[in-house]
Amino acid sequence: MDYVYGPGRNHLFVPGPVNIPEQVIRAMNRNNEDYRSPAVPALTKTLLEDVKKIFKTTSGTPFLIPTTGTGAWESALTNTLSPGDRIVSFLIGQFSLLWIDQQQRLKFNVDVVESEWGQGANLEILASKIAEDREHTIKAICIVHNETATGVTNNLSTMWLSLVHRKLFLFQLESGSCASAKALKASKTAKSVRVFFDWNDYLKFYKLGTYWPYTPSIQLLYGLRAALDLIFEEGLDNVIARHARLGQATRLAVQAWGLKNCTQKEEWYSDTVTAVVVPPNIDSSEIVRRAWKRYNLSLGWGLTRLPESLTLLQLQLLGCLAGVEMVLKDVGYPVKLGSGVAAASAYLQNSTPFIPSRI
Amino acid sequence: MDYVYGPGRNHLFVPGPVNIPEQVIRAMNRNNEDYRSPAVPALTKTLLEDVKKIFKTTSGTPFLIPTTGTGAWESALTNTLSPGDRIVSFLIGQFSLLWIDQQQRLKFNVDVVESEWGQGANLEILASKIAEDREHTIKAICIVHNETATGVTNNLSTMWLSLVHRKLFLFQLESGSCASAKALKASKTAKSVRVFFDWNDYLKFYKLGTYWPYTPSIQLLYGLRAALDLIFEEGLDNVIARHARLGQATRLAVQAWGLKNCTQKEEWYSDTVTAVVVPPNIDSSEIVRRAWKRYNLSLGWGLTRLPESLTLLQLQLLGCLAGVEMVLKDVGYPVKLGSGVAAASAYLQNSTPFIPSRI
Amino acid sequence: MDYVYGPGRNHLFVPGPVNIPEQVIRAMNRNNEDYRSPAVPALTKTLLEDVKKIFKTTSGTPFLIPTTGTGAWESALTNTLSPGDRIVSFLIGQFSLLWIDQQQRLKFNVDVVESEWGQGANLEILASKIAEDREHTIKAICIVHNETATGVTNNLSTMWLSLVHRKLFLFQLESGSCASAKALKASKTAKSVRVFFDWNDYLKFYKLGTYWPYTPSIQLLYGLRAALDLIFEEGLDNVIARHARLGQATRLAVQAWGLKNCTQKEEWYSDTVTAVVVPPNIDSSEIVRRAWKRYNLSLGWGLTRLPESLTLLQLQLLGCLAGVEMVLKDVGYPVKLGSGVAAASAYLQNSTPFIPSRI
Amino acid sequence: MDYVYGPGRNHLFVPGPVNIPEQVIRAMNRNNEDYRSPAVPALTKTLLEDVKKIFKTTSGTPFLIPTTGTGAWESALTNTLSPGDRIVSFLIGQFSLLWIDQQQRLKFNVDVVESEWGQGANLEILASKIAEDREHTIKAICIVHNETATGVTNNLSTMWLSLVHRKLFLFQLESGSCASAKALKASKTAKSVRVFFDWNDYLKFYKLGTYWPYTPSIQLLYGLRAALDLIFEEGLDNVIARHARLGQATRLAVQAWGLKNCTQKEEWYSDTVTAVVVPPNIDSSEIVRRAWKRYNLSLGWGLTRLPESLTLLQLQLLGCLAGVEMVLKDVGYPVKLGSGVAAASAYLQNSTPFIPSRI
Repeated sequence: MDYVYGPGRNHLFVPGPVNIPEQVIRAMNRNNEDYRSPAVPALTKTLLEDVKKIFKTTSGTPFLIPTTGTGAWESALTNTLSPGDRIVSFLIGQFSLLWIDQQQRLKFNVDVVESEWGQGANLEILASKIAEDREHTIKAICIVHNETATGVTNNLSTMWLSLVHRKLFLFQLESGSCASAKALKASKTAKSVRVFFDWNDYLKFYKLGTYWPYTPSIQLLYGLRAALDLIFEEGLDNVIARHARLGQATRLAVQAWGLKNCTQKEEWYSDTVTAVVVPPNIDSSEIVRRAWKRYNLSLGWGLTRLPESLTLLQLQLLGCLAGVEMVLKDVGYPVKLGSGVAAASAYLQNSTPFIPSRI
Repeated sequence: MDYVYGPGRNHLFVPGPVNIPEQVIRAMNRNNEDYRSPAVPALTKTLLEDVKKIFKTTSGTPFLIPTTGTGAWESALTNTLSPGDRIVSFLIGQFSLLWIDQQQRLKFNVDVVESEWGQGANLEILASKIAEDREHTIKAICIVHNETATGVTNNLSTMWLSLVHRKLFLFQLESGSCASAKALKASKTAKSVRVFFDWNDYLKFYKLGTYWPYTPSIQLLYGLRAALDLIFEEGLDNVIARHARLGQATRLAVQAWGLKNCTQKEEWYSDTVTAVVVPPNIDSSEIVRRAWKRYNLSLGWGLTRLPESLTLLQLQLLGCLAGVEMVLKDVGYPVKLGSGVAAASAYLQNSTPFIPSRI
Repeated sequence: MDYVYGPGRNHLFVPGPVNIPEQVIRAMNRNNEDYRSPAVPALTKTLLEDVKKIFKTTSGTPFLIPTTGTGAWESALTNTLSPGDRIVSFLIGQFSLLWIDQQQRLKFNVDVVESEWGQGANLEILASKIAEDREHTIKAICIVHNETATGVTNNLSTMWLSLVHRKLFLFQLESGSCASAKALKASKTAKSVRVFFDWNDYLKFYKLGTYWPYTPSIQLLYGLRAALDLIFEEGLDNVIARHARLGQATRLAVQAWGLKNCTQKEEWYSDTVTAVVVPPNIDSSEIVRRAWKRYNLSLGWGLTRLPESLTLLQLQLLGCLAGVEMVLKDVGYPVKLGSGVAAASAYLQNSTPFIPSRI
Repeated sequence: MDYVYGPGRNHLFVPGPVNIPEQVIRAMNRNNEDYRSPAVPALTKTLLEDVKKIFKTTSGTPFLIPTTGTGAWESALTNTLSPGDRIVSFLIGQFSLLWIDQQQRLKFNVDVVESEWGQGANLEILASKIAEDREHTIKAICIVHNETATGVTNNLSTMWLSLVHRKLFLFQLESGSCASAKALKASKTAKSVRVFFDWNDYLKFYKLGTYWPYTPSIQLLYGLRAALDLIFEEGLDNVIARHARLGQATRLAVQAWGLKNCTQKEEWYSDTVTAVVVPPNIDSSEIVRRAWKRYNLSLGWGLTRLPESLTLLQLQLLGCLAGVEMVLKDVGYPVKLGSGVAAASAYLQNSTPFIPSRI
């Protein structure tokens, strides 16, 4: 039977769930605590303050919901919108597809704008929709910031500018969301039925200084603390710059292999995931299967609606690139072994700065 | 500032979150895995089978929802009921109060039956409601099985008998629920809006054999595996018997202290939590504060609506009883030190069996 | 077969190995590191500085040897003495017996001074030995500071005064020792053969700033760091005072049980271990066996050479006292249940200060 | 100051201490236990049986000594030899140099046979020494099986054949050694002074069935159990074959870089460590420093006595090879990026079998 054992360390390079830093695993290695003691609120207070720094906001209100990302999506929608509300939602890949499905099942009036998969949200259509909307019937614009399935990142700040003074904007982060003042205001009148996800319960306990309307996950709170500490130690901008380097190195490797990036334009390149178009004669799921069965390497596979199949790489490590090269050769693609690694290394070797704490 | 540090090990005796066995903490001490590989579905399959054994059902359908108990409540309600449905809901303490609040906000027509706190659900009223309900307008009966706030356990099997052939029944377990065939059937027609909590998404993936509609918590799955293994190693009925012994020992200690059990009749005694009525001249929150500030002991405090204040004890250990005695004396209650421990010990010393694997 | 499983948490109350604080377990939960990188020496430097604070010395030289206590004993002896050296060694219990066996096998000329077990080292004999030793043939005085087997602590500072200007003194700590300037000087000329335990290899690497002559245990270094942090957070003197309180509470419980403390005088009472004399008609090993088989409680048993049998209690918790009461009753000793707990609680309830960080 | 922090996961590729599998880290994540309870001996018994399988012996006697490898060396020597004994010891690198230093300080009469570093033990000299030794004055032959400093593995079975019926042979494993019947017999008469390392204390407790003469490390015992389970799950011969593949891949990469393997002949190639000769104009310690400071990559550096400097690679991962390529370029060596990875990948892609449990 297929089961978990494989020799050596599993190399996890799927777009999610991602590798957890050892420091965070260690921080979560603990017994429960009484969340009504003064200790957990004191910890929570630091978390809420520091999560805002990740969202680069001083006025936002963060919510740490003990659930996974799909729950955070639902929380963002139901707290700001009412059934029947018209929303414009951009369909650009599998994750936006799932989100739109959620929006429709939550009974919003979803105005879907589809782009070819591999493209970002179409700003021209957005502009014309807004121009036409003299009655202000559009209550929200829904855009997946980083579409995993196609490796597309939408530049939200560009979009934001085109929407100034007008609309509500939603971002989402795994199990954590940060609401703008506008979103918070909307939550006072939104009529979507919600209880577990209701921000107002949180806000009530924020005011009391006990912070939790119901039992949080103690382990996740300490894990979040450790993750934030790591980010601040490296510096948030350095973290972003490091991902940009790794993303660029990955794209150069894909190019060296003679394969196509699913993302159609540079402005949409995601630095955390690269979606690679696999030639029609190769089955991308075979790549994933073989990587797992032969090299103990976990890769993500592409998702529907494209003529060719796709493989998603969270290619943060040269070892992953080298592994992918072997798998590509295994499945019959005429890759030159070492070519992708060479392209990525050449770039990284020129661009990687010294670690400040070690100079 | 109040913060987490205290000398020695924190003694966690609140009704929740409860102590996690070391084996379960260890099992959760791990990196993520690709939940689309064959390993996670294989693991999940064993979990779903084994969770049914905990619910002592062969025909139920379990759902492992990556959230906390409040979310599991919502899942049970929205999957089986439609807005406007009439439900009979028993208010017997703080947790049933919170659940009823959720029911009302989810737009059900809640027929609240309140008992004095410290009593179980009133079966006579239930019987008469059912007798009068010739039109079958009652769609569900909602009873909190184990009301933490008052230490009341309702005997569901007794109630079940009185309802045979008629109604839908809901149980809930922290983050896991197990639906009966009747409940599952109701989920096909229930009109409550739900997406994240929708059982149908799960059922679709159960059929595919991949089991997860969205990302599960890898750590919690392995933790659940370890917890189930522990229960089966001891034997579920032995676990239940052990809790019965500890519950009885706790009640004997409370009696020896001259204090009143909040639970009014023996048939309602909870074996996992005992709610103790504190005399009017003593502030139960002072007990909790002092236990934490002086003895690094975490106790739970009672919740509203009773003339006297309450302290909730998950009194599984004699060390806890001894600690409570000191705190009681600290706050001015004339307890005879050692009296509760003696009463509990006398009972346990006669009733505790040898550990089978060690004989 | 006897094996590890038992329901619930094992209650570890043997004199050693002792419970590890959760913070220390967590700190050790890590992969290896390159001990030749700058990071491990930087960590080691802080450890060596801080270990000296535990020994309350500014001039001592600490050694962290990757081994257990028996190895640390050997390190202390072979680095300061030569075969044939005359040493005066006090036999007061099982651990001094084992140490003397080691001393003899290491070929020292051991002048054994035995006291009745339950007494401390005999200072009068020591004084007369020293007075008679006009030729200065005595090279060292060996005294076990805290004799686990009999619960005897020798007051080293008293002894030290009587030896001033004269002799070499050895203390030992589990896997860590701290050498005085005098000891270090002795290590330059000591002729005992040693390599693994040789302080000079360490000193060489201390000078180089790389600190390690051979591979250390990375996990233990981080565990030691966490343990030191805990001690400094509470305050070393507060830690000592806390142990004194717990020791006194334990002795009061033993007294309330009508049992005899093996330690014969108050000046020798150990605050970390209490040895309890069990009446002749009771087998102390039966106490230990039954505690383990019935209550998942690990107690230590007494060691040879006493007419009555002994049970060693590292009685830090009231829960342990309560458990021992049940076991005593199990094995036929007419203990009044709760009596020991009551005596200990009465003392602790009056003497335990508030936790400063929580006031 | 140099300290431990670096972004992302540290990539540990030094020859030691090596990476610990996640399963083993998890198994060690635990509190202490009473080693005198029946549980620890039961565990120990399985360990001793299973460690013999790793040494592929049924008649050997294993010792698990709570110390590091240098202590295990000392244990092997002092238990089988007496001061003044003549031993033939092969000096082929830094680790044999250290071992010979230990042998000399333990007062043996060491007949050192030095080979050029990069060569294995000289069998011809060994043969002639034995032929000349008509008086049987040679009591032991000491050969480091796997000389880390030069990447040389000596084929002990070949040597063994040439020694049949004559001599004592010593192997050593990190903190565990396994004594042959001949070695055990020698321990009965060996006059080297030892106490902590004395096998006889162990043997006494083996007979009693309690196994431990003094406190073991509970954590290491459980870690060893997990490590053995992993090896048996993969199959010991499969583990060895996997290392052979990785070793060969590494050597092919070094060749592709145009660099010289320090190991002079194929018969001596180590599959766990490859020592790479760096051209005279490059400082190997600069390679190590830069890898750490720029790429969070821990590499080992070569050790003295060779005209050129050396870098030691435990090159188990293609990511490591890719990292080394960047560092080599950083320090001025004209490597073709990707060349080593390509050579290694080409070999691995042809030779890696599918994982049996996943086919």
